Parts: sequence; C-alpha cells; structure tokens
Amino acid sequence: MHSVATVVLDLAVILVVAKLAGAVAVRWGQPAVLGELVGGVVLGNLSLVGFHALEPMKTEPSLAMLAEIGVLILLFEVGLESTVRQMMRVGVSSLAVAVLGVVAPFALGWGVAAWLLPDHSVYLHAFVGATLCATSVGITARVLKDLGESQSDEARIVLGAAVIDDVLGLVILAVVTGIVAAADSGGTMSYASIGLVVGKAVLFLFGALALGVVLSPRMVALAARLQAPGTALAFGLSFCFVLSWAAHAMGLASIVGAFAAGLILEDVHFKGLVERGEHPLEESIRPIAELLVPVFFVLMGMHTDLRAFADRSVLVLAAALTLAAIVGKQACSLGVRGRADRLSVGIGMIPRGEVGLIFASIGVGLSVRGERIMDAAIYSAIVIMVIVTTLVTPPALKWSLSRRRKTP
Amino acid sequence: MHSVATVVLDLAVILVVAKLAGAVAVRWGQPAVLGELVGGVVLGNLSLVGFHALEPMKTEPSLAMLAEIGVLILLFEVGLESTVRQMMRVGVSSLAVAVLGVVAPFALGWGVAAWLLPDHSVYLHAFVGATLCATSVGITARVLKDLGESQSDEARIVLGAAVIDDVLGLVILAVVTGIVAAADSGGTMSYASIGLVVGKAVLFLFGALALGVVLSPRMVALAARLQAPGTALAFGLSFCFVLSWAAHAMGLASIVGAFAAGLILEDVHFKGLVERGEHPLEESIRPIAELLVPVFFVLMGMHTDLRAFADRSVLVLAAALTLAAIVGKQACSLGVRGRADRLSVGIGMIPRGEVGLIFASIGVGLSVRGERIMDAAIYSAIVIMVIVTTLVTPPALKWSLSRRRKTP
Repeated sequence: MHSVATVVLDLAVILVVAKLAGAVAVRWGQPAVLGELVGGVVLGNLSLVGFHALEPMKTEPSLAMLAEIGVLILLFEVGLESTVRQMMRVGVSSLAVAVLGVVAPFALGWGVAAWLLPDHSVYLHAFVGATLCATSVGITARVLKDLGESQSDEARIVLGAAVIDDVLGLVILAVVTGIVAAADSGGTMSYASIGLVVGKAVLFLFGALALGVVLSPRMVALAARLQAPGTALAFGLSFCFVLSWAAHAMGLASIVGAFAAGLILEDVHFKGLVERGEHPLEESIRPIAELLVPVFFVLMGMHTDLRAFADRSVLVLAAALTLAAIVGKQACSLGVRGRADRLSVGIGMIPRGEVGLIFASIGVGLSVRGERIMDAAIYSAIVIMVIVTTLVTPPALKWSLSRRRKTP
Repeated sequence: MHSVATVVLDLAVILVVAKLAGAVAVRWGQPAVLGELVGGVVLGNLSLVGFHALEPMKTEPSLAMLAEIGVLILLFEVGLESTVRQMMRVGVSSLAVAVLGVVAPFALGWGVAAWLLPDHSVYLHAFVGATLCATSVGITARVLKDLGESQSDEARIVLGAAVIDDVLGLVILAVVTGIVAAADSGGTMSYASIGLVVGKAVLFLFGALALGVVLSPRMVALAARLQAPGTALAFGLSFCFVLSWAAHAMGLASIVGAFAAGLILEDVHFKGLVERGEHPLEESIRPIAELLVPVFFVLMGMHTDLRAFADRSVLVLAAALTLAAIVGKQACSLGVRGRADRLSVGIGMIPRGEVGLIFASIGVGLSVRGERIMDAAIYSAIVIMVIVTTLVTPPALKWSLSRRRKTP
C-alpha cells in the first residue's frame, strides 16, 4: 500500500500546481498548457533552492505510466475533434500549407542539429528535425477562438493545415522512430529500410482509417445493444487503447494509433447511445483527460533541468532551434491561395506545444546499441523552443490580424 | 514504451469484459458489479483450459496501481452520496441496526476462522471477521431502487445503517490493520496497542470530518477564484488524494481517507463553480470511476483461483463464512423499531460486495514478520462469500418485501 499513497499524493501535487499555474497563464493571456509546463519546470527545479522532497516524482514509474496514458487520451481527444471526412475536405490550400510547414522546419531542424551537435549521431539530427514539425492544434485553435477569429479564412486554413500537419508529423515520427529501432537491432539506414517504415506507417494509418470508417459504426451498434451504463465511454476507450497497441505492435509510436482512433470515431455513431441518456464520448472523456493530461505536461516540465542553461551551448542550441521553428513555418505562407493573409497563416502555424514535447519525450527513451540518442541538455533546449514558440504566438497573431484588418 | 502499449491493451480487455459481463448480469436481474467480478474469475482461469496469454495481467504492477486508485475513487464516490449532516440525522434505528450488524458478523466470522483455520494466526481470524462486517451500500441501494422501494421505511433504515456500517467497518479495518502492522514491527497485541489504534482511527475520522466541514467550503471558495476550467474536479480529486495519503500516514487504510473526503464535500460548496458552467463533481468523477473501478473488480476476480475449490476445505470454509455472513446480519432485525419489516431489513443488509473485497485485498498484502497472514485459498473463500451474498439478496429481498405487502 505504501506506493499508492505516495502516488496519489504526487497526483494531488500535480493537479494543484497544474490548476494554479494554468490559471495564472490564462490570466496573462497565455494558454493553460504553458502554465502547466512552466509550473512543472518550477517544481522540478526546487532542489536548486534546497527543497529535495519532490525529486522521487521524476523517477516514479507509476507517474510516468499515467502520463503516457494521458498522452494517448490527449491525442484521442484531438482526433475526436475532426473526422476522416473533414480531413479529406480541407482542400488544396491547407494541404500545401501543411506539407511546406512540415518539410521546411524538418530540414532546418536537422540542419541546425547537424551544425551545432556534430558529435551526435545522424539519428539525433533527424529526431530534432522531427520535433520541429507538428503545429499544436490545441494552442492555435485556442488563440484564434480567444481572438474571435475562429471563422476567418486564415483560421480555416491554419486549422485544416494543423490537422494534416499532425498526421505528417506522426508519419515522420514513425519513420524516424522506426529507423532508430532498425539501427538499434543492428540494421543500417538504407533506402529500403526507410521505405519499409514509410510503407508501414502509411499502411497502418490508411488501413486503420479505411477499416475503421467501415467497421466502427457496426461495432458501436453492437455495443449499443448492451443495456449497461457507460457503454459509449468503455467502447471509445477500448477502441483507442487497442489501436494504440496495434500501432506499437507495428513498430510505430502508440500515439499514432490513439489519434487514428479519434479520427475514426464520430458523434453520429453514438447517436443511439446518447439518445438513451449516455453522455457524448467527447464529454465523458474530458474528466479523464483533466486528470491524466496535466500529469504529462507537469512531468515534462519537471524533467527540464535549469542547470543546463548555465551551459552556453544549450542556450545557443535553444535559440537556433527556436529560430528554425519560427522561420521554417513561414514557408507555409507560400502555400496560401486566395485573399487570406499570408503572414497570419505563417504565424498561426508557429506553436509547437504538446506534440513537440511528446516527440522529445519519445526521443529521450530511444537508444542505438545501448547508447541513448538524446541527452538531458538537448531535451532542455527542445522544451525551451516549445515554451518560446508558444509564448510568442498569441501577441504576434493578435498584431498580424489587426494589421490585416486595417489594410484594405 | 513497451509496457504502456501492453498496459493499455490490458485495460481494453478489462473494459470490454467488464461491460459485457456487467450487461449479462443486469439482464439476469443482478447488479453489474457481480458480472464484472465473475467476468474476472473467468478471465483469470482461462489458463485452466490452456490459454495462458492473460497470466501476466495478474502481476502487472501498473494495473494493480490503477486498481487501487480505482478503489479510492469508488469510496470517494460512495462518500459523496451522503453528507456529514445526513449521517448524524439517520437516527437511533439505523445506528442500532448498524452496530448489531457489524458486531455479530465480526464475532461469527472470527469464530468460524478460529474453528476452521486453527493453524493460522489470531490476526487472520480477526481479519476474516472484518471482511464480514461492511454491507455494500451500492448493491443494496441498487436492488431497492430496481424494486421501486427506495422511499420505504425499510429502505431508509437499511441505507442509513449501511452508511454507519461502512464507517464502523472502516474503523474495524483500521484497528485490525494497525494491530497487524504493530505485530509486524515486533510489538504484541496488548490492550494498550488496540486502544492506540482505535484512538487514532476515531481521531482521524472525527478530526477530518470536523476540520473538513469547517474548512472545505472556504477552500472551494478559494479554488473558485481560479479562472480555469475543471477546477471543481481537480480540487475534489486532490482533496480525496491528500486525505487518502493522510489516512495512510496515520497507519490507517487509505480508503478511510477517501471515504471521509467524500463525506465532507457537498454539492452546496461547489454551487459557484457549477453556476459558471462547471460540471458537478459527482458527474465529472463518474467517467474516471467508469475507467478505473472495473479494473479493481475484474482483477479481484482474476486473482480467484478456481483450482482452490478442488480442495474440500476451501469449500467448507466458503460455506461456513457465507452462513456466518448471512446469519450475522439477521442480528440487525433486533435493532428495528416501529412498523418496518424486520426480516426485510435483515435481508437488505446481507450483500458484502465491494467493501468485503477491498478488505480481502488489503489482507492479502499484510504480513507479520515476513509471513503473509492470508493465503490464496482463504482469499478465494472470501470471494465466494461475496459472490453468494450478492447473488442471494435480490431474489430474497423481492420475496420478503412482497410477503410484507400481503400481510396487513
């Protein structure tokens, strides 16, 4: 019983800090997730001022596991926000914006890493590039909504692109992770192995989506015949968990499966269940996310070692990565057609937020022949990049959209 | 990443089995929890027919941890259903019924254990007695509701008594657990040590309740000043987790703290938060319970080894314990005043359900000087007792209440 009492006390600390820091961030016009992250950085570095009681939280395996389940729930939630059909409808502009916005930062990030970290493996360089790819849908949507611009041309392009962006980012993550795994088991990075991983990722995503769209309404209809309360939630969660496991079993990251599960499930499927009094899936998943997702962000913050910043090379790396992240996404504006404001689209794509952090946390766990590919200093530089890109977006977007309104 | 993919697949299996088995139980007029338990028994014994893939679930530490958090959430939910004020109001009848219904089964259970298991320690005898104490509020309430008798005299007495019963059961559990812990650290069972444990339990419960009733409205008011969504849930969970930890730190079972936290928090406190659009605590805690509570019951079922029943002594023990559990609760009828049907009250108090199982699972984890006090055979006998008492209640109560209606 000892460990459970400790784990729930840790959870209470995390929840209280996440709520307090999140509320402070919101009061300062920033997204709550930024507060949770910074709150975690503060908690994790209290030992610098002589308070060591929280150190065991960083290595508690149960908390790490809850955090990883939290990430699956988060990606599932993000996936639930859009449907497969919507994704196919967002059009040429969003697709062009998304592809440019993934390729440019990936190349820039790889370049910066190869230039500043020449002693590290090519796997690390590719991984750093991957962490710069995915725009954080959550943060972008939240900022546009707060500015009352959710229905603008720019918003539609940015949000559409952010969704495709997530998928492309996940494919890149799948490829890089797969290559590292292949290298770890003695293989080398050949075109054939890259092709194999890309093939598997595409096969899984499109296979899961195609099969899911056909099968999931039937499965929900079957589940709806059970006269037990909570059927919608239990079915949705099981579906998410099974696809997460399947993605992992195919050598992809399990978040790819969770996201695909969210894309596949649609409100329409659950109509029968909701009519008999069940809560809609998105509503009943929210409390679970509210418990588990902050565990991830606060722990991510806690793993950021502020002492790393005494090292000038970390600061230089963080600055270069942040620049690459911001400049890289400006390539997006080249994909914009029609009257939408190109600068606003480029700025709207800047925040990296949760997905970049998730990639970084996966990178920390990877190793090639017993040697970890990413060290604490590089991880800390990535966290800085995420914090800065998230911090600059709300004021910059406010400025560029107001500028647009003034010009005819 | 390996373990998380496996853990979520395990969770998916648990959720699907819990829903399916729960729906079957409901269709047969039984509470869903019984289905989850029996579903777990089936899953856990598939290795008897040559299917061994699920065996690792029994020893996966992450699942055990999720199950234990699930129990805290369950006791918190049960506590939320009543308030401290209601508890003080239920009156003499319920108190008398509750005390008789705890003392008689405790003594009978202890006696049965001492008689059939003479080779085991006195700690085990006391522990077996404790598992027979607490009526399962959930099952009783559910059966009365299904019979349309929620507002009857009998229902009020039984439900009031079941609440007091829970508290008395938790005090007995605290005492027995404390004595075992004292014995483990070299002490002996003296009247002084019993007095100390009873004192701590009473001090904690009444201290937490008194302090909580005064402080919790103020704490909620403070929390309500945070402009962040999900504040009610985060505050409620943190409060539950902190009290669970505090109970554990005082040497009591952590479920005592979770239950006290639920009793203390009242809907009224959260009025301000609910008015600004937050979901009521009881509503947002439900999905979390729906995810984590089945993990506990299915795992409890899985730990029941059907091979134990090849051993005739286990069957004899199970039968004797079940008899003691049923006969012991008939002592309750002596406490009934007024026109309420004594037999129906006695029958309504029979189901042991979740609390008995929780006690048994705590007992399995206890040891005195390196020797575990409870073995798998005794655990299995207790699970049988819980299943049988839960199974007999709905038909018996239906019969006794219809008999009452016929007599003038």
